[in-house]
Amino acid sequence: MEACVCESLNCISYGLYLVTSSDGTRNNGLIVNTAFQVSADPAKVAVCVCNNSLTHDIISNSNVFAVMPLEQETPMVFIGNFGFRTGRNFDKFAKVSFTKGQTGVPVVREYTLSCIEARVTQAVDVGTHTLFIGDVAGGQFFKEGIPLTYAYYHTVIKGKTPAGATHL
Amino acid sequence: MEACVCESLNCISYGLYLVTSSDGTRNNGLIVNTAFQVSADPAKVAVCVCNNSLTHDIISNSNVFAVMPLEQETPMVFIGNFGFRTGRNFDKFAKVSFTKGQTGVPVVREYTLSCIEARVTQAVDVGTHTLFIGDVAGGQFFKEGIPLTYAYYHTVIKGKTPAGATHL
Repeated sequence: MEACVCESLNCISYGLYLVTSSDGTRNNGLIVNTAFQVSADPAKVAVCVCNNSLTHDIISNSNVFAVMPLEQETPMVFIGNFGFRTGRNFDKFAKVSFTKGQTGVPVVREYTLSCIEARVTQAVDVGTHTLFIGDVAGGQFFKEGIPLTYAYYHTVIKGKTPAGATHL
Repeated sequence: MEACVCESLNCISYGLYLVTSSDGTRNNGLIVNTAFQVSADPAKVAVCVCNNSLTHDIISNSNVFAVMPLEQETPMVFIGNFGFRTGRNFDKFAKVSFTKGQTGVPVVREYTLSCIEARVTQAVDVGTHTLFIGDVAGGQFFKEGIPLTYAYYHTVIKGKTPAGATHL
């Protein structure tokens, strides 16, 4: 990709989110920077998940997911647990406290500000990633706080980005 | 929508963007808070546009759009020109300088940091809004600056949100 195209794309603002799912047997989750509300009424949210990820496969089977906006103070070890490894040979929830949400997905309160659960209505393969769009099935608000943004993650925390992410 | 669901959705981070299109006869644009890269290779971007808007109709016909991230110092009069009225009975570009991009869309450099042009590959009706997903056709980087975020717009500028927006 040309440098000016990369620079132009880098002006887009993102948050950072824990996205989880469960097929009843396996719980898994990953860190994404693309989660957003896409329809007002009915309320719908969308998440953009890498096609190679286990979470992609689990959401494709279960048709449910949860989005949890991370707080600004989220430590790198938490992000690293979910964001820099696959769950195919590792239980990402082994050392993380969670409850089961109303759709059956793992809900994590630690370092997150809220949780939005959704039932998938549309799955759109967009190339390297799939956009899962879902009706909001419920929401929990955990605490006031500053959401972790991608800009803060890069410029203050100096966090890294895994290969293959949509946004470098 | 329940209060806790609204609160949970309010933790999602957004930027603010000028999205424009042209069908060759009419130029139009609007302000959105949902624009994002959704695929790494090929690079694809998505924008979420209200189904009632003229820009929705023009993108549906022309299959091209441009996304311009606003800078933090964007004045309310600029946002108001594009964001709080319809272009059906008003030429939003009458008093705004612009050039024609490589896809034919109006490109505005004033108060924007960059411009990403895209050709629509998928249009997904998600209820009140449509997600237009497109291959990146080109990018221009205008200047270094802080992108205007939705959080800054609400908490510092005290900007308003039009009725029917996805995110209040």
